[in-house]
Amino acid sequence: MNQQHMPERPIWRDAEDGKIRIIDQRFLPHDLVISELNSVDDVISAIYEMMVRGAPLIGVTGAYGVYLALANEGQQTDLQPAFREADRIKAARPTAVNLAWAVDRTLEKAAAASPDRRAETARQEAAAIAEKEAENSYRIGRHGLSLINEIAGKKSGSPVNILTHCNAGWLACIQVGTATAPVYAAHEEGVPVHVWVDETRPLNQGARLTAWELGAAGVPHTVITDNAGGHLMQKGMVDLVIVGTDRTTYTGDVANKIGTYLKALAARDNNIPFYVALPSSTFDWQIRDGVAQIPIEERDPDELRYMPGFEKIDENLLMPKTSLAANYAFDVTPARLVTGFITERGVCRAEERAIRELFS
Amino acid sequence: MNQQHMPERPIWRDAEDGKIRIIDQRFLPHDLVISELNSVDDVISAIYEMMVRGAPLIGVTGAYGVYLALANEGQQTDLQPAFREADRIKAARPTAVNLAWAVDRTLEKAAAASPDRRAETARQEAAAIAEKEAENSYRIGRHGLSLINEIAGKKSGSPVNILTHCNAGWLACIQVGTATAPVYAAHEEGVPVHVWVDETRPLNQGARLTAWELGAAGVPHTVITDNAGGHLMQKGMVDLVIVGTDRTTYTGDVANKIGTYLKALAARDNNIPFYVALPSSTFDWQIRDGVAQIPIEERDPDELRYMPGFEKIDENLLMPKTSLAANYAFDVTPARLVTGFITERGVCRAEERAIRELFS
Repeated sequence: MNQQHMPERPIWRDAEDGKIRIIDQRFLPHDLVISELNSVDDVISAIYEMMVRGAPLIGVTGAYGVYLALANEGQQTDLQPAFREADRIKAARPTAVNLAWAVDRTLEKAAAASPDRRAETARQEAAAIAEKEAENSYRIGRHGLSLINEIAGKKSGSPVNILTHCNAGWLACIQVGTATAPVYAAHEEGVPVHVWVDETRPLNQGARLTAWELGAAGVPHTVITDNAGGHLMQKGMVDLVIVGTDRTTYTGDVANKIGTYLKALAARDNNIPFYVALPSSTFDWQIRDGVAQIPIEERDPDELRYMPGFEKIDENLLMPKTSLAANYAFDVTPARLVTGFITERGVCRAEERAIRELFS
Repeated sequence: MNQQHMPERPIWRDAEDGKIRIIDQRFLPHDLVISELNSVDDVISAIYEMMVRGAPLIGVTGAYGVYLALANEGQQTDLQPAFREADRIKAARPTAVNLAWAVDRTLEKAAAASPDRRAETARQEAAAIAEKEAENSYRIGRHGLSLINEIAGKKSGSPVNILTHCNAGWLACIQVGTATAPVYAAHEEGVPVHVWVDETRPLNQGARLTAWELGAAGVPHTVITDNAGGHLMQKGMVDLVIVGTDRTTYTGDVANKIGTYLKALAARDNNIPFYVALPSSTFDWQIRDGVAQIPIEERDPDELRYMPGFEKIDENLLMPKTSLAANYAFDVTPARLVTGFITERGVCRAEERAIRELFS
């Protein structure tokens, strides 16, 4: 790890030079690389290349993209170019609902301001979305803590074993994360927890990012292959599953990193609670049937064919040169497999009526 | 790929110099490396280091280990040293039942011979076990072909999509494999098939070995992460799952490469047939409850922490230096999730009565 000063957030506006900066997460856990976002193209490639990832962070990054579009255009009365830039940003990744939500909201606020105030209005809105996400994460942590405390009460001092998939930590969510927020809250209060960290192929966000975050915070954790969770559940080694989500329908279907569905099936088969932690910005209020209707991004097969983080030389090719590979980035866990949602407003069952009651 | 002469089997006795040789599977798909087994220690490290792997192949390798023990000892009246060597071989890997079965059977035959005939008797028995496994695989292929044909009949010419986990191909099983035997049989008869190959972390036997085998035979295939199968099944992109097994109880519980259980859950959730292909040598006639009683090997966490096949330098470390990793090699799929077994004697349901009827 480079001995860089550790940022508190994965994206921020520098107080001194006014530049938007991010942690380039592709180099973690071995290097802490900070990059600048100076243009819409920078923003798009940061999102598509996954320098930033995670639904709330993608949203905030997209909002700063609207700010950069307006700032770089200078004062214009015509808003059409800004709308076109917003469309380009929203197309960078299709699955997370936060991106479109944050971009639209930021541009809407900016459009309502006078031309000379638009860029500044967008910047303030992006910052406000970031603050709101951070606050939501802390609230999610408090609500999730009560679930962990309930289990801890039955374990007479031995750690609560929590399994998570991918990274829904502060790197994905501004601060403390969504799925990790209850873990950090428990750890801070001295409730013993241990996290099973799914490696999360092909980009290894669990092994690289979640393990790094948890290690930095001193939370006991063990990295496992994505294949292992079912076995651990059969053997009574998992008390609770908590994952994040990129988009959740108002009916409770959960799009999240590919492989989440398999863990939900195993949790159900072993009577282990399976919770999804999310801020309200991640709910999709339009889509009824997640499995049929949520668009699932298909990414470059080379992410799977080559080991990520290395140069693409022959030795890093993991399979025969002539074999095809397919790289679906997400799957959808039907609501029937979800025990409940941990949101900033509290915990609710994974069904339309309960969701609408909480967010009426 | 080195332009070595392609062997027909993963283990053989050289007709010219009488040496036992294997494909060292750790270097596939990029290099075809042939190694000699000259001693019991060679055999143990070949099995433990996974130069050879797969239940039937481990059995045959163990049988040749008994031969080498007897040949290297010279003519002895005392059989105790040979029994001790057999115990060491059997301990090399605990999960596959074939290893103990083949070692015990070979030593038993040899022990019944006169001291001057023991080594040769063991060698003949090892060769006979190999022949029998090859014959069983061909029979499994014929029986599995009828299942594939049945599905092909409903698909009006589009390929039958078969998902498999790990490698239960000829590299694991002397010839044509177990899970792959029906695939090869279909391909040879012109029935269109396409195989979804699970990468199979941490040692990537799917991406490295199954993809290599299928590619060499011209069978269309696509490598996917272990996370992807559930999504593909939800989307109707999988018609049939066929896997191998390292040990199956007489009640139908299936120990196989870690992650198999998750695919069985997803197949059940999507009404997709889930078959296990195995020769009778893989049945365990002693164990009733697979989940509770089959020993699950826990292997070196470095297999997961570092990318396999590379030197262990810092750049190949996939997670933070200080993060723990756990490496359970197998899991057990309960019989209730298994549609049926494809064996050399035919197809049967995954339940004690049906299994006992077939192998009465």
